Amino acid sequence: MADYSDGDVGVSEIWKRRHTAAHVMAQAVLEIFPTAQLAIGPPIDDGFYYDFELPRTLTPDDLADIEARMKRIQGENLSLERTVRPREEALAFESERGQKYKSELINDLPEGETISYYQQGSFIDLCRGPHVASTGEIGVFKLERIAGAYWRGDEHREQLQRIYGVLFNTQEELDDYHRRLEEAKKRDHRVLGRQLGLFVFSEDIGSGIPLFLPKGEIIRHTMETYVRDLQTRYGYSHVWTGHLVKEDLYRKSGHLENYVDAMFPPMVDPNGPTFRLKPMNCPSHMTLYNTQQHSYRDLPVRFAEFATLYRYEKSGELNGLTRVRSLTQDDCHIFCTPDQIEQEFTLALKLIREALKRYGFSDYRVRLSLRDEDPDSKYVKDDEKWTLATAALRRALDTNEVEYFEAAGEAAFYGPKADFITRDVLGRDWQISTIQVDFIQPARLGCEYIGEDNQAHTPVVLHRAVTGSTERFLAVLIEHYAGAFPLWLAPVQAVIIPIADRHHEYAQGVAERFRKEGFRIDVDTRNESIRKKIAEAEVQKSPYMLVVGDRDMAGGNVSVRKRSQGDLGAIAVDDFLTRLKEETAE
Amino acid sequence: MADYSDGDVGVSEIWKRRHTAAHVMAQAVLEIFPTAQLAIGPPIDDGFYYDFELPRTLTPDDLADIEARMKRIQGENLSLERTVRPREEALAFESERGQKYKSELINDLPEGETISYYQQGSFIDLCRGPHVASTGEIGVFKLERIAGAYWRGDEHREQLQRIYGVLFNTQEELDDYHRRLEEAKKRDHRVLGRQLGLFVFSEDIGSGIPLFLPKGEIIRHTMETYVRDLQTRYGYSHVWTGHLVKEDLYRKSGHLENYVDAMFPPMVDPNGPTFRLKPMNCPSHMTLYNTQQHSYRDLPVRFAEFATLYRYEKSGELNGLTRVRSLTQDDCHIFCTPDQIEQEFTLALKLIREALKRYGFSDYRVRLSLRDEDPDSKYVKDDEKWTLATAALRRALDTNEVEYFEAAGEAAFYGPKADFITRDVLGRDWQISTIQVDFIQPARLGCEYIGEDNQAHTPVVLHRAVTGSTERFLAVLIEHYAGAFPLWLAPVQAVIIPIADRHHEYAQGVAERFRKEGFRIDVDTRNESIRKKIAEAEVQKSPYMLVVGDRDMAGGNVSVRKRSQGDLGAIAVDDFLTRLKEETAE
Repeated sequence: MADYSDGDVGVSEIWKRRHTAAHVMAQAVLEIFPTAQLAIGPPIDDGFYYDFELPRTLTPDDLADIEARMKRIQGENLSLERTVRPREEALAFESERGQKYKSELINDLPEGETISYYQQGSFIDLCRGPHVASTGEIGVFKLERIAGAYWRGDEHREQLQRIYGVLFNTQEELDDYHRRLEEAKKRDHRVLGRQLGLFVFSEDIGSGIPLFLPKGEIIRHTMETYVRDLQTRYGYSHVWTGHLVKEDLYRKSGHLENYVDAMFPPMVDPNGPTFRLKPMNCPSHMTLYNTQQHSYRDLPVRFAEFATLYRYEKSGELNGLTRVRSLTQDDCHIFCTPDQIEQEFTLALKLIREALKRYGFSDYRVRLSLRDEDPDSKYVKDDEKWTLATAALRRALDTNEVEYFEAAGEAAFYGPKADFITRDVLGRDWQISTIQVDFIQPARLGCEYIGEDNQAHTPVVLHRAVTGSTERFLAVLIEHYAGAFPLWLAPVQAVIIPIADRHHEYAQGVAERFRKEGFRIDVDTRNESIRKKIAEAEVQKSPYMLVVGDRDMAGGNVSVRKRSQGDLGAIAVDDFLTRLKEETAE
Repeated sequence: MADYSDGDVGVSEIWKRRHTAAHVMAQAVLEIFPTAQLAIGPPIDDGFYYDFELPRTLTPDDLADIEARMKRIQGENLSLERTVRPREEALAFESERGQKYKSELINDLPEGETISYYQQGSFIDLCRGPHVASTGEIGVFKLERIAGAYWRGDEHREQLQRIYGVLFNTQEELDDYHRRLEEAKKRDHRVLGRQLGLFVFSEDIGSGIPLFLPKGEIIRHTMETYVRDLQTRYGYSHVWTGHLVKEDLYRKSGHLENYVDAMFPPMVDPNGPTFRLKPMNCPSHMTLYNTQQHSYRDLPVRFAEFATLYRYEKSGELNGLTRVRSLTQDDCHIFCTPDQIEQEFTLALKLIREALKRYGFSDYRVRLSLRDEDPDSKYVKDDEKWTLATAALRRALDTNEVEYFEAAGEAAFYGPKADFITRDVLGRDWQISTIQVDFIQPARLGCEYIGEDNQAHTPVVLHRAVTGSTERFLAVLIEHYAGAFPLWLAPVQAVIIPIADRHHEYAQGVAERFRKEGFRIDVDTRNESIRKKIAEAEVQKSPYMLVVGDRDMAGGNVSVRKRSQGDLGAIAVDDFLTRLKEETAE
């Protein structure tokens, strides 16, 4: 069996090939280890895996052996036959051949579910399918690695061995996959982060809390300044609400009940209130909203804040900047009337598009997550609001010609949402920006405005993030740019390299000139060769290197070398300054 | 007795007058309450007080009665006579007349101390003095208020009633004092903060954690941006280290031992490390320093950070923005060689002077706090370092012609320091900036650099803050400016007031023009009278009001009204933009 646990959503051809390959791998493993216990083996992005309980730990040599047998089975071009068995018969069969995990799976199937098997040659497996017609059709594959896994992902259950394989339609696609993998490795933000002196972690401070060195801090500050200015231009207001709140506020908001596992432990004082670090800004922004009186005339109120939030991620799940415990969101909460949802959604949409474009992500789609029609679903029961909000979001997406797809049943419990999925240069998808409609929290925390009817009403709140968290987006950027930041984001925008000591003063003067205009300039006055200094500036991915010698000094020039493009020749200092300004404004 | 507990440092004439007035007050109180127990009664800034144990609670009417009696005693012009008594005789005297607090004070005096009394008429009090010659010389006074106080400031001892009086040489000085008090009340940053919509507190978030509304956030952001740019220009680097650390780091640094009362309670996870909110940045910056290797060639390393620190101030001590639990320091730690102390101190000095001037504080003094020569003192024993650092600081202050005074015994235990004391427009002193030399923490946390001798050395660290904390300095600024922020800091720099609906579009266009240049402009399109809009903009202390009507539209002008100066007439939009730019740059 492969994917009873995963459902049979994957019915594209490549998905079927990967699924069948998992069965072929299980057949090969049983040839070597006839007592192997089979767990599950689904198709996944780029390939497949299968979990086994085996009499001994696998070695890399085993992988080669299994792969060779798989190729043989592929060559045999065995056809896959589907059969259906009654539950009792299936249980008897698994019990007889001693496959305990399969028995457990069958027992967990709901009454009345069809129980199907797929067989190729002598190998038969409990499986919902679908599969390709025969083992000859599985395509080009390679076994990649062995990993540990728990039965059903439960660390209290049996430990299994998982074999991962990759599989594509053609050798070319497989090679391309490996090339992208290689490239991703070179772009690994953890490696580049260290190499470029951007951030570090320290066990003295704590896991998952990145510490930003000067060059990294400049990038994050530049990122935040950019979004801040953008938000100001779009009419958002910035507020400041600190990093902790009384625990009672999270009791009222419902977070203590639903989100406590993601929070740091409480700060308990027997003589005073208990405090919690903020894992999110919404309750704080709503509390701030509540300190003032609001009329419908003042709405929308748009509170933005770059607050660092603290989430107690499991230490095993921490990963560079992509999964951290301290994350700085470019968060905003928009308090508006139901009639303003479309207008505010459109404004946020435009802002997000402008920001993504600035960072070089022109390729993105929007997933519009809606409720499903299941009457027992988790979604707030308020048909009128759902209908109104869903229509407003669709209209806004259509009017602004945004490419989107709908996902029923994927909405937050408190309302529909739109997530922006961008694709980086390696073709990987990242979910970055989000706009979420909230019908619930504002009521729970008692937010109000006085309407035209002189009555108190509850505002709708839109939760909105542009780049998500500064930390995670920086990880994406480092890998997207391979560390070669565009001029406006580069921590050092140009390195001036004087040829000899007598050019130092001139070099410093030029640097001062650029710095006055807000540019970040280093002067490399070390006693090293020009060649070495240029090489190091290239490693540091500085956008420009400006070599200055006698002739440059005499002419008021700099000899410009552009990152990855080489020499551009001597340029007058004023002209180069104009160039810098134009390039950062682009 | 008045000030055995306070020492007799105050020997200026006004100080003696205030001291004698305390005795006169005690005499008056004894006339009304013959069984009154006298505690202590020292002179203080602006006046004096005396603590009494009385048979009943005082009322405002009592104050008038006491004041009248004091005036009578003043008129009697009784001379003050000093006598000395042996300890046993003094104790017998106090016991006989039943003054238990005086007996306790005598018992606590060190063996061999001279025990003196001052007598005027029938009133006699244990007192070290000095006093004026007679009660006729005490000057112009007024009793102000009654407060509760504990004997010896100890909440476990007897509760007393304290009467405060103010006293000056002349009626004019007293009137001036009251005028300043009135003015300070009008400038109270808590009142103005609410009135101008700058910040609020919420019991849902927690005491002592100010929440900044959009206008307040803009000011704090502008303040931080100003210091950040200044620091960048002076060659400081900015880093980011988050808001919490593992408690173990504070064990190593010594903070857990010496500073635990000022920290928020720990975050305890039985399965992981305990965390603490950061009450200060030094250990984090030193940890960050330690993640890199350093050579003497790379020093000085200057780490600046605008981190919000959390200090668990007692809730009774919280006061607006001046005493908060969340404070954002403009903190910097400079790692340098001992030889670089003078140069780095000078650099910090210049930066601080430039910043204070920008904020309108030209009047300031520096207190140079040094160790004392007491061999048992708390100060680190390293004569060579103290001598070197003290000399470096004195030289830097002299060379830069800074007015300073030395305070022996006032240094931090880890090294000498210079505190900047500025005077606001009301003549009140505020300690703002600080530069502190630290010989201890860098060694304790294992900071190192490789010297020219190829050996590892411990760097000296200078702790430096420019405006101290953003919150407290903002409180000072609000009161210093009386809420009328200079143009560059004002949250709304100009309000455009269109006369009629047909001028709205023009007004918005002008606003856009100014906003593009980074100015903060509001357009008041409400359906209210021009007079009312101008009045409100004056209350909000907007630096400029720009009224626009037909003639302005036709001529491309704005009719300018300057805060507290009135009409400046019509000015072309371009010219006014130039004016704004010049004024913000000033």
